[in-house]
Amino acid sequence: MDRRSFLRNTALGGTAAAASSLAAPAIAQGNRTLTMVTTWGRGLAGVFDAAQRVADSVTAMTDGQLTIDVKGAGELVGAFEVFDAVTAGQADMYHGADYYFVGQHPGYAFFTAVPFGMTAQELVNWYYFDGGMELHDELGQIFGLKSFLAGNTGAQAGGWFAKEINSPEDFNGLKFRMPGLGGKALGKLGASVQNIPGAEVYQALASGAIDGTEWIGPWADEKAGFQEITKIYYTAGFHEPGAGLSVGTNREVFEDLSPAHQKILEIACGEAHQWNLAQFLSNNGSALQRLQSSGVQTMEFPESVWDAFGQASQAVHDENMGDELYKKIYDSAMASMAKSSEWIQKSTGAYVAQRDRVLG
Amino acid sequence: MDRRSFLRNTALGGTAAAASSLAAPAIAQGNRTLTMVTTWGRGLAGVFDAAQRVADSVTAMTDGQLTIDVKGAGELVGAFEVFDAVTAGQADMYHGADYYFVGQHPGYAFFTAVPFGMTAQELVNWYYFDGGMELHDELGQIFGLKSFLAGNTGAQAGGWFAKEINSPEDFNGLKFRMPGLGGKALGKLGASVQNIPGAEVYQALASGAIDGTEWIGPWADEKAGFQEITKIYYTAGFHEPGAGLSVGTNREVFEDLSPAHQKILEIACGEAHQWNLAQFLSNNGSALQRLQSSGVQTMEFPESVWDAFGQASQAVHDENMGDELYKKIYDSAMASMAKSSEWIQKSTGAYVAQRDRVLG
Repeated sequence: MDRRSFLRNTALGGTAAAASSLAAPAIAQGNRTLTMVTTWGRGLAGVFDAAQRVADSVTAMTDGQLTIDVKGAGELVGAFEVFDAVTAGQADMYHGADYYFVGQHPGYAFFTAVPFGMTAQELVNWYYFDGGMELHDELGQIFGLKSFLAGNTGAQAGGWFAKEINSPEDFNGLKFRMPGLGGKALGKLGASVQNIPGAEVYQALASGAIDGTEWIGPWADEKAGFQEITKIYYTAGFHEPGAGLSVGTNREVFEDLSPAHQKILEIACGEAHQWNLAQFLSNNGSALQRLQSSGVQTMEFPESVWDAFGQASQAVHDENMGDELYKKIYDSAMASMAKSSEWIQKSTGAYVAQRDRVLG
Repeated sequence: MDRRSFLRNTALGGTAAAASSLAAPAIAQGNRTLTMVTTWGRGLAGVFDAAQRVADSVTAMTDGQLTIDVKGAGELVGAFEVFDAVTAGQADMYHGADYYFVGQHPGYAFFTAVPFGMTAQELVNWYYFDGGMELHDELGQIFGLKSFLAGNTGAQAGGWFAKEINSPEDFNGLKFRMPGLGGKALGKLGASVQNIPGAEVYQALASGAIDGTEWIGPWADEKAGFQEITKIYYTAGFHEPGAGLSVGTNREVFEDLSPAHQKILEIACGEAHQWNLAQFLSNNGSALQRLQSSGVQTMEFPESVWDAFGQASQAVHDENMGDELYKKIYDSAMASMAKSSEWIQKSTGAYVAQRDRVLG
């Protein structure tokens, strides 16, 4: 039995129990179960929910003819092994943040978030109408994947700090937890950037091993308990202004699905993106209110710090521009962002500023 | 043959031609076609596209087992007759802006937009996670409808004016085209509010019969040609900060669908909401750039005018508060909006302001 068959059989066994609890009647002949590995611990609020939303929608829309068995990180493969597992055919699909796979190709960063890049809404505008989906597919062709956006955390918070940040120099020597291209940018300001696994961040901050950390946003940050250690919370960050999550399906597996099931997977992913973003934003709103009630101070970086973030982010992008496809994606994303952002700011942005001023 | 059967047969006839052009193979037994009437002229950019997106997704996801035949306004019933046509069973479903049906119940306004109400993102947050969908369903129970959000124009522009607006007094006696609760609010500022059908607005503005008009946003406004008449364009408006579009299905028809087809319709609508909002925002961005290149001046109302908009809007809401369900929906929507807006402004809002400042 090759490894793939083994995993398939395991997955089928694991799904039988889940399927039997559905309201749907007896399952017909020809049913198929796809195994979805994820970069998330089982049940992790928000991000695992997005994966499960896709699976639940597909099961319901196909009346159980196509079922997706969602695996937490480590259940079949480790979190960062999901990409290679799917391209190698060891699992059928993954749900994750594509910027974990910049080692496979740096262009994947754009389908989660890049420093000084797109908000969640700008990402969707680009994805559906300004070439983003086609570029996601161009990357997928290289690796044998068919990918769709399928979740979004919204803008991630600037993070928790032991003391206030008043100038770019305050990052010099600061021990700070931030992954990805954002972390590389902070390093250019002299920060000692740490990549600490999620489960260890609280202890590192509590012990003073790090001076600060970003995580996700109020909902997840409150669960992590950082407010017990420091009350200084920068709500706006430069590093992940709208972090998209994706489903990547082995291309052969995808092409073997019927056209109807292909479309069901595509539409389920798109709907999950919207649903998941709303989930984060609604829960972040509630959590922010609780954090503020418990004495957390919400802060904003001064302009001099934002200027430095901008220069450092551009330097990080410039380092990748030698890759032709990275540059192609960067140019496409930035052009779309500039275009749609101008209208959004002149309409929604101006409206909200006035509304919130008037309503108080 | 009763009227419903007649319409059904007509619809089936009309759909056969469309179905034959699909890539799908021969259509199996047991297929069903639902007739969707709309409040949109056939092919109207953006809004008709959203209806068609729902129909195309449903057809593809069911491999043609369930087909939706989309009718333009006037093809079966007039634009504003679609609600009554569906509740009476003369058509299976409608796609439209639910605030057209405030005569049936004023609470329907919230599922499109109300003055000083929610942005598109805030609407989605409320709909999925803070009780909006349940309240939509509570309204639907009254009228025998099952409704889902299924499109969004984003924030609508403040509009086109013959001369600048410098104070609330400038609205006194101004002949302005604005429908809905926003128009009622403008009336409280002394404006002579006109409800002019879309096809006649250009001529009314050109002839001086009206002093100004709002329409939708740059994409649709440019198509209407208002930039040929005046160059004064207020981009932010108070009246429709994120106009949702909905599918309302006759409840008996919906409950007669299989659970899988019910879920397919629900998910198709949700995905169409996200897709359509992106369509408007992407196209608005392009159109804004063209309008500015052609000499259009984008303006923002001064704070004194926004203050007056706010007071007038609250007065309009207060007039409806005697209706218990309106008040219930208002309270739910405003609580959700205040909660999610605070986080969005402190994260995305602050980020975008700094990003756009730094990038120039």
